[in-house]
Amino acid sequence: MQIYDIKDPSQIKNLSMKQLDVLAQDIRHFLIQNISKTGGHLSSNLGIVEITIAMHYVFSSPKDKMIFDVGHQSYVHKILTGRSTKFATLRKLNGLSGYQKRSESPHDCWEAGHSSTSLSAALGYAIARDVQHQNYEVIAVIGDGALAGGMSLEALNDIGAQKRKMIIIFNDNAMSISKNRGGVEKRITSIRSSHLYRSMKNDIKVTLPHNKMGDETLKVFSSIRDRIKSGLIDAPLFQEFNLDYLGPVDGHNIPALIKVFEAAKEHDGPIVVHVRTKKGKGYRYAEQDKIGQWHGVSPFNIQTGQPLMKLPINEKTWSNIISDGLIELAKKNKDVVAITPAMAQGSKLLKFAKLFPDRFFDCGIAEEHAITMAGAMSLGGLRPFVSIYSSFLQRAYDQMNHDLGRMDLPVVIGIDRAGLVGDDGETHQGVFDISFLRSIPNLILSQPKDAKEAYDLLYTAFATKHPFCIRYPRGQTAVTDKIDFHLISIGSWERFDIGSDPKAIIISYGPDVDRIIHTIHENNLSMIVVNARFFKPIDQEMCKELFNLDLPIYVYETDVKIGGLSSAVLEYQNEIENHIHILGIDDHYVQHGSIRSLRKKEHIDLESLFREIERYGQD
Amino acid sequence: MQIYDIKDPSQIKNLSMKQLDVLAQDIRHFLIQNISKTGGHLSSNLGIVEITIAMHYVFSSPKDKMIFDVGHQSYVHKILTGRSTKFATLRKLNGLSGYQKRSESPHDCWEAGHSSTSLSAALGYAIARDVQHQNYEVIAVIGDGALAGGMSLEALNDIGAQKRKMIIIFNDNAMSISKNRGGVEKRITSIRSSHLYRSMKNDIKVTLPHNKMGDETLKVFSSIRDRIKSGLIDAPLFQEFNLDYLGPVDGHNIPALIKVFEAAKEHDGPIVVHVRTKKGKGYRYAEQDKIGQWHGVSPFNIQTGQPLMKLPINEKTWSNIISDGLIELAKKNKDVVAITPAMAQGSKLLKFAKLFPDRFFDCGIAEEHAITMAGAMSLGGLRPFVSIYSSFLQRAYDQMNHDLGRMDLPVVIGIDRAGLVGDDGETHQGVFDISFLRSIPNLILSQPKDAKEAYDLLYTAFATKHPFCIRYPRGQTAVTDKIDFHLISIGSWERFDIGSDPKAIIISYGPDVDRIIHTIHENNLSMIVVNARFFKPIDQEMCKELFNLDLPIYVYETDVKIGGLSSAVLEYQNEIENHIHILGIDDHYVQHGSIRSLRKKEHIDLESLFREIERYGQD
Repeated sequence: MQIYDIKDPSQIKNLSMKQLDVLAQDIRHFLIQNISKTGGHLSSNLGIVEITIAMHYVFSSPKDKMIFDVGHQSYVHKILTGRSTKFATLRKLNGLSGYQKRSESPHDCWEAGHSSTSLSAALGYAIARDVQHQNYEVIAVIGDGALAGGMSLEALNDIGAQKRKMIIIFNDNAMSISKNRGGVEKRITSIRSSHLYRSMKNDIKVTLPHNKMGDETLKVFSSIRDRIKSGLIDAPLFQEFNLDYLGPVDGHNIPALIKVFEAAKEHDGPIVVHVRTKKGKGYRYAEQDKIGQWHGVSPFNIQTGQPLMKLPINEKTWSNIISDGLIELAKKNKDVVAITPAMAQGSKLLKFAKLFPDRFFDCGIAEEHAITMAGAMSLGGLRPFVSIYSSFLQRAYDQMNHDLGRMDLPVVIGIDRAGLVGDDGETHQGVFDISFLRSIPNLILSQPKDAKEAYDLLYTAFATKHPFCIRYPRGQTAVTDKIDFHLISIGSWERFDIGSDPKAIIISYGPDVDRIIHTIHENNLSMIVVNARFFKPIDQEMCKELFNLDLPIYVYETDVKIGGLSSAVLEYQNEIENHIHILGIDDHYVQHGSIRSLRKKEHIDLESLFREIERYGQD
Repeated sequence: MQIYDIKDPSQIKNLSMKQLDVLAQDIRHFLIQNISKTGGHLSSNLGIVEITIAMHYVFSSPKDKMIFDVGHQSYVHKILTGRSTKFATLRKLNGLSGYQKRSESPHDCWEAGHSSTSLSAALGYAIARDVQHQNYEVIAVIGDGALAGGMSLEALNDIGAQKRKMIIIFNDNAMSISKNRGGVEKRITSIRSSHLYRSMKNDIKVTLPHNKMGDETLKVFSSIRDRIKSGLIDAPLFQEFNLDYLGPVDGHNIPALIKVFEAAKEHDGPIVVHVRTKKGKGYRYAEQDKIGQWHGVSPFNIQTGQPLMKLPINEKTWSNIISDGLIELAKKNKDVVAITPAMAQGSKLLKFAKLFPDRFFDCGIAEEHAITMAGAMSLGGLRPFVSIYSSFLQRAYDQMNHDLGRMDLPVVIGIDRAGLVGDDGETHQGVFDISFLRSIPNLILSQPKDAKEAYDLLYTAFATKHPFCIRYPRGQTAVTDKIDFHLISIGSWERFDIGSDPKAIIISYGPDVDRIIHTIHENNLSMIVVNARFFKPIDQEMCKELFNLDLPIYVYETDVKIGGLSSAVLEYQNEIENHIHILGIDDHYVQHGSIRSLRKKEHIDLESLFREIERYGQD
């Protein structure tokens, strides 16, 4: 069967095991060829080829619901559901998405992009099915990295309590994006290496050939488990969550996978199928990858494994610039530590980790834990830096507010991939952070316009005793010859008057500032350009000056407008010009007390309102 | 020793076991007496009297760090650290906080209010200690409800990996705020009821009398564990996270607690001490409580257990009103289901649960999972309602954005305790939700001014195919005779012209609208009052009308100003009056594509900026 001939997954149900194996090899070839041209997620898709084939062989999408955690490993699913011809458009505007996407196909019943949502989604579907007395299978596919995220564990707990029919395919590839360093991972590793594990695996192979064995199989499995001491059984985590278990199974053996999926299908209640796979399977460079550099890739040369595009020699990625600055600061101050939620490679922190192994903490896909732990580290006397992608910081909003902001803790947050990230789409665009962080009291939020300012902001952040966020975009910029550090006055903006007779004021931030200045020069225009390097606090003095100039003001922001920098400017403009009189809670946390006393204290009681109206009426 | 004589916890270190027992009884009496007058958290504090005494006997605060998860059970800690004289001011303005508070005492090394942060905090402190080569103990106290929260599990995973010295006191009281219904809970219950559990408990009692036994004790424990089959050992969850374990111990037996804490102190690496307690211990009504109504209480009569204040007969709490409306809608539509993250009692959903047991889901303290699961339930054809406190919704910001908003899923969110909540203070004030939700595309955010509008908004929400939030405050309001439902046009505000010659416009929302109208009538004033019942979308048409009236406009909001309703009004005013020209990303999610193509599409490329400047210059 030719890949391009697959219009519907039901077509593969009649293939022989041998034909399925050939199909797997064809798909692997197809993936490598295509992704080498478009870029995309390579390793995870190479690792899941046989699993996805077996899923579509055993289950019937779209009736049965297939939910891929994160969704970056759904390329094979896309191929088997008739989307192979669109792979040239992968991650391009209006082209195929790099994740599951409901608008693309009825076979995509769920969408993600952030980790650890699949188990909650699967339980939601299972409940909906049961409440409505419908009849279909729900299958979630989740990797070992995503499984250790808090949401997954919340869901496992609920799944174990509700005991609804569903299948969790645990794709154990021994590597999340960066290496998962958690306790669960250590347990899995120790299990893998034990002799009992291997002999048990053989036991399972013996029992598996009997198809459609249903509960009988499980009894056999249970008795196998019971024979092995608790410290060495393979599924204690799932058992602990009250879940039944099958496996482990070789994730590249299609007949074995089909058999175990069929057994799982017969099982009543939730069941975990533990599948062992090799990430990057079938492509040498990806197979040898230890640090996750073949997780998401740009176009590359298949023979050499080298990326087709190289950075200009005088440019570095923003992540690298921040990381370089951090290393310099860490050399001078031994209290500086770095924390990443499983993004050591993406955030370019591997060099820091190598230089300061005792001061580097990869806590796995656990953004919430990362932020709160950093808060306590600061209370313990350290100066933590947490690197986190803007869109993943959404997962830790409460920790930013309830922990860092409220306790006013001196943690430095590097908000990586801020602004549009492009190819990864909706779930990864880092365009909300200004809006959702701006209302958090005590917090400072900034963005450098260039590498020099990045170093200075980083230096300033560590010299400041408040939560201090520095956001920076995906991509690269020119670097300076040497790294030096200067304090920047918090909340200060920079003003550039270009030409002798400015016709307009442009307020912007980040690397666009220099681009705007360049464009003005190039076109011989005269304008004032403002580098609004702080979103919070804003430069009120400069704002006042600008308002007084009586020139048209343009706020050029590359993130969401609602609640963003422009709102901050409008709020301040209104504050001094008093167009609209606003009563509300000021920029601080409100302590305890009766609501009545608090309203009085915050000047949001009715008396304050009517006093304000009266006062203004008399002006 | 008299309670009021305790100025420092070191004072109790010289007391005999008998004296400590007397102290425990005195504290219990003190708590009941005081909380009956001030209100506060009763059951959890009664349950933890002996644990806290034993902690301060064995450990040395403030050198050793004591972290209470949530912190509502820190009253005994407050008493032992010299704050007993301030209990009359508990939860009153400028009085004693109901949680740990660093500004109150050096013995409070951490603050919370939201659940499940203590383990991350403890690990943070342990890391800081080790990196700085310091020497102190870190002790976290966490209940079974909070342990099942995602953050706790993320932290457990990291703690098991890092293996730093710390003590986790697992306070197993078999009841979180509402009953924890997760798989972990079921496991614990089944363990409790087993005979082996009881006999093992006896084994432990035999080994415990030897003080300071260190690792030897642990070996004994391990061998006990090994003798018991995997299905019945007591600590598989912790074991699974690679953690050592002591217990279970009777949490009301001070000598036993002291012994086990001393053993834990000698242990190297992280260790869990499993302590079984009875919530509400020592106060009959609280002990018998099955649904959590003695968790947080208002002032009550000690003899009868009845609250001192009763609601007027024609008033109901907002939670009750929403719940009543939901029940009526659920009677008509069998797809309506309700979800609560452990707040069935607080959110008044117990009646719903009783009427529709198969359509009610308490998923434990798991806000993230609750929201995402609800999203999938809606995709599966149900109409889910999730009730969640405003300040706890912060925990699920990413799920609101990445899951509900982005996929535009028809889930109805009841945002309970919105606005100031008063006594509980900073961590519980529900004043941020308007600001952090307003920038989420597709989302509708509303608040009713009275019970009738609450029913109508609820009805409208279920008639709408978008994520729909209805926020309502703590407290009560007048109820209507009967519940009926009318559609409200989405985004429509209500205008009340009072008097014949209005001098001002007041824009407000929620129950303040009627209070404002009442005050205007009472004082014979003439004003226009606007019920801004939608924060998103706002009523642009009415805004335009109001702007044109050329009257002073007052936006009266009782939540944070930054990014709130007033910002929405300012943003729209600026949009039509064009004071400041704003380029930025519109109110929608941005799909994938190259950054260059996306900037063009979103009109945030430099060309669009300069075209806009040119266009305006020619106007």
